[in-house]
Amino acid sequence: MFIRECWYVAALSSELEGKPLSRQILGEHVAIYRTESGEVVAVADRCPHRGYPLSLGKVEGELLVCGYHGFTFDCSGSCVSVPGQDRIPTKADVRTYRVVEQGRWLWIWMGDGEADLTKLPETPWLVENPQWSSVTGYAKIDGSFDFLVDNLLDLSHETYLHNGSIGTPEVATTPIEVEVDDDAKVVRVFRHMDAVQCPPFYSKTTGLEGQVDRWQDIEYFPPGFYMLNARIAPVGQPPLADGSDDHAFHMKIFYGLTPASEGKVHDFWALARDFCVGDEEIDRFLEKMQASVVQEDVDALNILQARANESDTWSEVSIKIDRGGLAARRVLETMKQVQ
Amino acid sequence: MFIRECWYVAALSSELEGKPLSRQILGEHVAIYRTESGEVVAVADRCPHRGYPLSLGKVEGELLVCGYHGFTFDCSGSCVSVPGQDRIPTKADVRTYRVVEQGRWLWIWMGDGEADLTKLPETPWLVENPQWSSVTGYAKIDGSFDFLVDNLLDLSHETYLHNGSIGTPEVATTPIEVEVDDDAKVVRVFRHMDAVQCPPFYSKTTGLEGQVDRWQDIEYFPPGFYMLNARIAPVGQPPLADGSDDHAFHMKIFYGLTPASEGKVHDFWALARDFCVGDEEIDRFLEKMQASVVQEDVDALNILQARANESDTWSEVSIKIDRGGLAARRVLETMKQVQ
Amino acid sequence: MFIRECWYVAALSSELEGKPLSRQILGEHVAIYRTESGEVVAVADRCPHRGYPLSLGKVEGELLVCGYHGFTFDCSGSCVSVPGQDRIPTKADVRTYRVVEQGRWLWIWMGDGEADLTKLPETPWLVENPQWSSVTGYAKIDGSFDFLVDNLLDLSHETYLHNGSIGTPEVATTPIEVEVDDDAKVVRVFRHMDAVQCPPFYSKTTGLEGQVDRWQDIEYFPPGFYMLNARIAPVGQPPLADGSDDHAFHMKIFYGLTPASEGKVHDFWALARDFCVGDEEIDRFLEKMQASVVQEDVDALNILQARANESDTWSEVSIKIDRGGLAARRVLETMKQVQ
Repeated sequence: MFIRECWYVAALSSELEGKPLSRQILGEHVAIYRTESGEVVAVADRCPHRGYPLSLGKVEGELLVCGYHGFTFDCSGSCVSVPGQDRIPTKADVRTYRVVEQGRWLWIWMGDGEADLTKLPETPWLVENPQWSSVTGYAKIDGSFDFLVDNLLDLSHETYLHNGSIGTPEVATTPIEVEVDDDAKVVRVFRHMDAVQCPPFYSKTTGLEGQVDRWQDIEYFPPGFYMLNARIAPVGQPPLADGSDDHAFHMKIFYGLTPASEGKVHDFWALARDFCVGDEEIDRFLEKMQASVVQEDVDALNILQARANESDTWSEVSIKIDRGGLAARRVLETMKQVQ
Repeated sequence: MFIRECWYVAALSSELEGKPLSRQILGEHVAIYRTESGEVVAVADRCPHRGYPLSLGKVEGELLVCGYHGFTFDCSGSCVSVPGQDRIPTKADVRTYRVVEQGRWLWIWMGDGEADLTKLPETPWLVENPQWSSVTGYAKIDGSFDFLVDNLLDLSHETYLHNGSIGTPEVATTPIEVEVDDDAKVVRVFRHMDAVQCPPFYSKTTGLEGQVDRWQDIEYFPPGFYMLNARIAPVGQPPLADGSDDHAFHMKIFYGLTPASEGKVHDFWALARDFCVGDEEIDRFLEKMQASVVQEDVDALNILQARANESDTWSEVSIKIDRGGLAARRVLETMKQVQ
Repeated sequence: MFIRECWYVAALSSELEGKPLSRQILGEHVAIYRTESGEVVAVADRCPHRGYPLSLGKVEGELLVCGYHGFTFDCSGSCVSVPGQDRIPTKADVRTYRVVEQGRWLWIWMGDGEADLTKLPETPWLVENPQWSSVTGYAKIDGSFDFLVDNLLDLSHETYLHNGSIGTPEVATTPIEVEVDDDAKVVRVFRHMDAVQCPPFYSKTTGLEGQVDRWQDIEYFPPGFYMLNARIAPVGQPPLADGSDDHAFHMKIFYGLTPASEGKVHDFWALARDFCVGDEEIDRFLEKMQASVVQEDVDALNILQARANESDTWSEVSIKIDRGGLAARRVLETMKQVQ
């Protein structure tokens, strides 16, 4: 029921300080930890002995020691020690998952096939970078993956759910354009709002007041990676033919969408900007604002799921603003079929 | 499984101040709100677009605006606006329910048939009235409708569960009389206790001390309306032949029994009295006492339900005090069959 | 699914002060109470009338009065009074369970057959006694009976889960010996550690520092009674041929394992010692230490159960330290079959 042969965000790098992290991904519990030398390792979060979560164990140098009876594993998942005897049973090894740390995020390959590094989304804006500053965060949603996809692909909800931070009337009233690249499996949604009120989220960070041109260009790479290219610029100063766009402020809003289990999803987010680079006060402001926006989504999706859990019949009504979300559903369905 | 073609109490009028109210009735989520002009409207609590609860939306004048994407509905449930386009889909309307505000309560017709106003229980005692003062309140019970019917039709439990407020030994020891009007679908239970101790609930409000005549005459109109006519009078002064009863204090204790879903029920209550009319101190005392009595019932019914959820087999033992409850069950069963 | 024809610990004697105790045992709710004369009575915790828990009732002299409608029962479970009438229905009696109070524990026979007193475990060390002092306590585990048996029969987990109190490296590294008495249905596990570090639990109570001989001799009487004979002694001073062992400190750690329902178990514990007898400061220290050790087990077993509830497939890997637990499982399986 999940698309498995792909990369998902598994954790923020900052979550790997101290003890191992337990995270459920595609219904599987995974223990993720950083060894003393800095290597990041992901293993099935269940000791082969009696099933105790390995995430409750202890990292000792490059080894992970189970917290119940001391079964000990190296970074390849091989069991190297058991209590009370020298012989290690052949079945005592634990499954590992391929992980890649990139920028502020840790990516994981949950598939049975070999991890395909060519499919790993690139996020240079999240890497230490003189042109871009970034912040990141995480929320767990007790709502389905599909509800989150719907939410992110149709930003008209900003006007109502995020009124007061990023939502203004024009987001809902401005029609969108949708493009689907069926081969590359990318869904693009464009909403260009010209000469509209600059919302607080952007006016406080860019210094622009009153009317601006505000563009929202979404690129969704199903299933797990989403990028919103936000452009805020003085009215009537579009990018030049050579692509340069010096008058504009650019922000990239990333989401890592990772199914936890049926009806639950991890919502990793990051914001990168090409202005006020290195300004830590702006970092804190954006962190706080975005966490609050995400929480509004979390609350909405949690209640949608709670209601969905109760009722067996439901037929929705779609309109033009839903074309992005409907396109995303089609691509996701195709990916499930192929698999 | 629910009796649908009838009136149920949906809310206290006082619950309709400010934002829309979300209430589950007969398993259906209903959004109830008062428009700017004062009209009360009840609609299915699910936006036809993506299913978001309309109760989380905003009342704007006579309109209700969904809090997720702004679908907007008038008082007839017609969708009058959607984001990003002028055309309104034909299926975007939302179901409405007929509601009637009367006294301090709001009644709703959940049936598929047309709302039958002739069946609406009359509650003149709860309307602004020089002869009667009233207070009202509400509790939610995580217990089934049937348990609440049992509870209200057999008041012998007052002696044990409500000891110290309305319960005295004589309630349990005094036999009852039961009458069933199968045509009108009314169950009546009479318990006349003569020369018994006046419980605190009545002595503090009537001023009567020591022994009194205390009558409890129940009229239950299945499924959703219950009225207990309480009469407290000096010993040996029954009503006259012409029905006048000047020496007595009368209180009417109303219950609106509204199934929320399987195993959960709304418990609306009101108390009207024909003495100390307009005395707000007595209002507060009765509100507090009755809320406490109801809470004792809530606690008991919650635990009955929790135990019932665990066990599949159960055979009860009935005695004479149960004749009222057993009669009520029979009438309810007939009403379900007919439906 | 439960072994029924045997004795289980139902409660600590200290739990029977004041109001009746409600305890679920083998899936059945039991109300346990002490009458005014001191007799301990256990009855099905469900009034035959309308199913209200009798544990919410009131003890009046030698009688138990239901808190809902006042059905009243004597110590044999016979209903002796109902409200509103003199005749007692024949089916109004409530089932009783045979209970025996012994030392600090109350034992119950849940079986359908007659209670067999010859099978009652003897616990003279918990009775008022000049040679032994004891403390006792209780915890509820949201984990299965089987997980608790595994836990108690394989003490190698002390090294990891109870590190800092009773766990030292040698517990995990020292091999065990296992004996099964299939006729008497007893499983014995021996671990004799010679010249090892004395853990804080014992050094603070015995006064021994540095190296000691530490023996852990388990006797498990399936299903419900477990005794760990702990011996701490100066190095190289084994018991004499006549059994005398004057240099050693002895502690007996008892567990009463009582299934509450599927996936939940009551964990009664007691500690008796033949040193510092009567020292209340040592009592408090041991109470606190043991409660903390038990909580570590509770936390571990709760999470094992939570994970087990999620996954349907699981195959474990066993090693030599598991021989005690595996033997216990075999005996338990046999007892279930025979039944």
